[in-house]
Amino acid sequence: MQIMSELEKATPHTLNSSEMMDLAKNLWPINRSITGPGFNESLSILEKYIKIKFNRLKFKSGEKVFDWEIPKVWNIRNAYIEDSTGKKFCEFRANNLHVMGYSIPVDKTLTLNELQKNLHSLPDQVDAVPYVTSYYEENWGFCISQKERESLVDGNYHVRIESELTQGELVVGELLFPGQTKQEIFISTYLCHPSMANNELSGPVVTAELVKFISSLEKRTYSYRVVFIPETIGSIAYLSRNLPQLQKHVVAGFNVTCVGDDRTYSYLPSRNGSTLSDRVAKHVLRQIYPNYKSYSWLDRGSDERQYCAPGVDLPVASIMRSKYGEYPEYHTSLDKLGSVVTEKGLEGGFQALTKAILILESNKTYCTCTLGEPRLGKLNLYPQTSIKGGYPARTKLISNVITYSDGKRDCLEIAELLNINALEVAAISEELVTLGVLYILGD
Amino acid sequence: MQIMSELEKATPHTLNSSEMMDLAKNLWPINRSITGPGFNESLSILEKYIKIKFNRLKFKSGEKVFDWEIPKVWNIRNAYIEDSTGKKFCEFRANNLHVMGYSIPVDKTLTLNELQKNLHSLPDQVDAVPYVTSYYEENWGFCISQKERESLVDGNYHVRIESELTQGELVVGELLFPGQTKQEIFISTYLCHPSMANNELSGPVVTAELVKFISSLEKRTYSYRVVFIPETIGSIAYLSRNLPQLQKHVVAGFNVTCVGDDRTYSYLPSRNGSTLSDRVAKHVLRQIYPNYKSYSWLDRGSDERQYCAPGVDLPVASIMRSKYGEYPEYHTSLDKLGSVVTEKGLEGGFQALTKAILILESNKTYCTCTLGEPRLGKLNLYPQTSIKGGYPARTKLISNVITYSDGKRDCLEIAELLNINALEVAAISEELVTLGVLYILGD
Amino acid sequence: MQIMSELEKATPHTLNSSEMMDLAKNLWPINRSITGPGFNESLSILEKYIKIKFNRLKFKSGEKVFDWEIPKVWNIRNAYIEDSTGKKFCEFRANNLHVMGYSIPVDKTLTLNELQKNLHSLPDQVDAVPYVTSYYEENWGFCISQKERESLVDGNYHVRIESELTQGELVVGELLFPGQTKQEIFISTYLCHPSMANNELSGPVVTAELVKFISSLEKRTYSYRVVFIPETIGSIAYLSRNLPQLQKHVVAGFNVTCVGDDRTYSYLPSRNGSTLSDRVAKHVLRQIYPNYKSYSWLDRGSDERQYCAPGVDLPVASIMRSKYGEYPEYHTSLDKLGSVVTEKGLEGGFQALTKAILILESNKTYCTCTLGEPRLGKLNLYPQTSIKGGYPARTKLISNVITYSDGKRDCLEIAELLNINALEVAAISEELVTLGVLYILGD
Repeated sequence: MQIMSELEKATPHTLNSSEMMDLAKNLWPINRSITGPGFNESLSILEKYIKIKFNRLKFKSGEKVFDWEIPKVWNIRNAYIEDSTGKKFCEFRANNLHVMGYSIPVDKTLTLNELQKNLHSLPDQVDAVPYVTSYYEENWGFCISQKERESLVDGNYHVRIESELTQGELVVGELLFPGQTKQEIFISTYLCHPSMANNELSGPVVTAELVKFISSLEKRTYSYRVVFIPETIGSIAYLSRNLPQLQKHVVAGFNVTCVGDDRTYSYLPSRNGSTLSDRVAKHVLRQIYPNYKSYSWLDRGSDERQYCAPGVDLPVASIMRSKYGEYPEYHTSLDKLGSVVTEKGLEGGFQALTKAILILESNKTYCTCTLGEPRLGKLNLYPQTSIKGGYPARTKLISNVITYSDGKRDCLEIAELLNINALEVAAISEELVTLGVLYILGD
Repeated sequence: MQIMSELEKATPHTLNSSEMMDLAKNLWPINRSITGPGFNESLSILEKYIKIKFNRLKFKSGEKVFDWEIPKVWNIRNAYIEDSTGKKFCEFRANNLHVMGYSIPVDKTLTLNELQKNLHSLPDQVDAVPYVTSYYEENWGFCISQKERESLVDGNYHVRIESELTQGELVVGELLFPGQTKQEIFISTYLCHPSMANNELSGPVVTAELVKFISSLEKRTYSYRVVFIPETIGSIAYLSRNLPQLQKHVVAGFNVTCVGDDRTYSYLPSRNGSTLSDRVAKHVLRQIYPNYKSYSWLDRGSDERQYCAPGVDLPVASIMRSKYGEYPEYHTSLDKLGSVVTEKGLEGGFQALTKAILILESNKTYCTCTLGEPRLGKLNLYPQTSIKGGYPARTKLISNVITYSDGKRDCLEIAELLNINALEVAAISEELVTLGVLYILGD
Repeated sequence: MQIMSELEKATPHTLNSSEMMDLAKNLWPINRSITGPGFNESLSILEKYIKIKFNRLKFKSGEKVFDWEIPKVWNIRNAYIEDSTGKKFCEFRANNLHVMGYSIPVDKTLTLNELQKNLHSLPDQVDAVPYVTSYYEENWGFCISQKERESLVDGNYHVRIESELTQGELVVGELLFPGQTKQEIFISTYLCHPSMANNELSGPVVTAELVKFISSLEKRTYSYRVVFIPETIGSIAYLSRNLPQLQKHVVAGFNVTCVGDDRTYSYLPSRNGSTLSDRVAKHVLRQIYPNYKSYSWLDRGSDERQYCAPGVDLPVASIMRSKYGEYPEYHTSLDKLGSVVTEKGLEGGFQALTKAILILESNKTYCTCTLGEPRLGKLNLYPQTSIKGGYPARTKLISNVITYSDGKRDCLEIAELLNINALEVAAISEELVTLGVLYILGD
């Protein structure tokens, strides 16, 4: 009897981590925000990678989405500060983090004191340029390292931001993969941050690779819905158009974020805490990294806030590497490809999520075909000669899978009872179906 | 946004601990028992304090109440023992504990040996006069300190008890305070012990102050039913007349006893153990004294024995300071005002019970008005500029209250999840209702 | 008030441990297997002991029972190996363990190398002859101590097994004892092992004594069904004919095995884990041997595998002394009467199972007759004079039984809450019924 399940055997996808890293490098320089050309350009790069076109769902500026309103579109061409000697710094072209997201146009000369009110830095991380935004209140600002800020001398400074806020559209990139049933696995990732690596490029990059993996699954039990969105406003907008369908069909889902460094693994539950997504996430992490960090719903901070909000309550959990807000480089210019996000880190994130999907695909509920124990001896699954200590571990394992296959426990529950991998339980169960020992409930 | 709830702001009651102590001193000298003039006189003193008249429910001697029978009324004018030199001791007028409760009249001369059979003392507490009763078997006795008992010399002793057991009435003092709903909070305290402080004067004294507090509540959600009873027979008698009403209306209740010393806080559960009263009691004590002593139902010993009996099962728990039976001075002449019961002790007992009532009054269930997260930024509850580490604790707190306001969890449950005071959750929730973020379930 | 229950008082059975040991000695030399004359002869010896005839249920060779088939009947007259000097060893007549169970006839001469393939020994237990069977694959073999095996010298060996496999019948010995209700206690033990003591003679011997005990119960609440079967194939065969009746009537059951040594007590749960049988087994063992070993369902290995299989799910647990597979002498010639199984060991196994039965018989659900507490003083169950510390432990105990007698908790649950013996709760409850304090639910 083989341990590898039919599903694993049938999966032709081969991971190439360096391709994920190349994709991340291509996306890196683009100035993304929750709207604007950077978001659209990033979608196009992703399309080339996955070789599938997105459904581009569009929401007009001013459109009401639940309690929110779609903002204007932000365009920025250039920005800098010039000191009295003519030296430019905080140049947008050098690092797009230097300009506060959604800064309105400005072109004036200020004293250092006046300028200070619109500068942002981190006193505790003197070399880091922080990532700052002001989506919903019109304002402008520059982000600068604490060290550079402290070096500024009294005098006049010319600030210039060449930007505009215009009526336009917020875009969501959506992909739908039909499966044998209309029940869905929902994958969401966000694509609205400028040049930062773990949060966020690791999310869309690993999700792009997951898309390749999903489309390579020959016999998908589940349908898949994958969305690339601007965080918060994007999930709210998407929910506002699709909530009834999502509530009807989604059986499990993951918010894919912070899956690119190689320092740890983390889990953040759904609000409910015991959905199928939570069970799968915890099982996978226990198998691949038993010391994973388990966060509470009180530590939430990404789109699960919307997907699990009261009355929405989709089964969305998060499998992460180092969680947003919990690693020092988070939301600063220090969150870089190479130093923070590595091929190994991306690969680990991808593998954990793939395992979760494979387990979901194979997580059936089985029942014995006979009453009493099946006679395993005639199937060569039990030793014909009975002697003390003569039972191989595999015989015991098969017998344990059978004894819990009572039509009530799914593979995941049995795997937890036996403290083994759910894919192993699934593989044994599949083989026992072909041997006529078990049948699949509902088939 | 204010933390103090509307309810707290609207509560005009100001505590004056020295008034509680004065009331205790007024009640102290009276010889109370389960029937008789002392009980009635104590009710009258309480009426003056609370400035409201009791409904005096009366039960005639011989009346059947469930498995019990209302006893005769005990009257006592005088009692003492006189030795052969003419020296009197165990004088009732010196300390009403010297005479066993419900002693029948006696007037005879005995040898020391004969006398010993009717003397009660505590070998382990040689200076204490114990509190002894014999309500249901006609008998007489004197209570004396072990030390004095051992000093008695052989000879004749004249014992005299001027008492009588007559047909009469057992009285229950009842107060009803209507609220916005017919659902009731039930408060019971007992008033049948002679001169002892923590058990029992602290109970009726703190309850009298609670009555003032309850009547000061302008917008009571709940109706209140407060009873001052003789212990055991009084609760049985009261239940025998009011059980259907109590079972229909009471949503929470407390037996108020041993709430006057300042040494610890204690909790005794209802028989059920997880009623609303239990949840409130444990929450309050965790907030004000995390090391409180948590007793089991097996440690019960007061009127909860009746209120929670099988088939009665009212939600009655106990919030106490040092529990009856668990502090050395219990049921002896050492349980005194000043040394055991203090102003600080009474105040602590009162505050704990008041907090429980305020929490009950404000313990509503809320639900978000929108799907997804409400946009808190436009309500100035969320920072407009987003920068790492820039979220104030209050923002997080409000967001956490909202995320759990799903129409299923009440404030108390949310407070336990967030490990904060339920009144804080209630205050935030109220404010969020006025801001249109939440609505009250059932309104 | 007596602690001993009516049931215990009415039980005339007196245990005589030496009679159990004598029965074991009578059964010892017989060569039992899952079929054949040894099984039948053993049933006849048991019939003499219990003085009741078995229903002998018969299953023909080749009959399909669920996923299994009744095997042929094994007859063996003689077997040995003879070396080139004419010396015989591995003689069946010396120890029936020397021949592998279900060995087919053989009569040929082999070299030592050829012979080795059909020899069985235990490298870790050099003095032990192992117990080996091959019920479902036709084969032959000899079992020998490792020490003797290593002493064999090169040369020719004549092997001879005078046996035959013929069409015949598998037999189950069944006893039915009607009680006041049709609800049943089910007792199963197996009788298919040759000369070994703890596994298995202790099982049928203690069960025979239990049969005497059960038939001595004058007022049985429950009906009893007791079966002596060949392990595995016997329970499957029995289930295949009786499953609907068993599922309808059995409320608790025990597989009686390994109940004869005096080294420890053990518990193996039903697959469900929280049936009445499990509750009783754990309660009894906690009372008599708090350090008992608690095994998991994953440690199963006897007929509970059939009785608790998915879709069968009878409430069958195991109360054992040293569990099969867990003591060194298991399934070898070292598992002997005297050195492993002792009178004390058998007596302990019998007492534990008897206690379980007595508890099941007396495990009623009681309810108080009055509302509020009953007045125990008038029943002399409560001290008439109330003084601090003056309540005897027994008063407290009675009061605790009453407070939990709410028509929902059975004696077993109350006993666990009070951490006392369930028979004590039952005895107190019975007495309280006669006093008019409690009534039995359902009566």
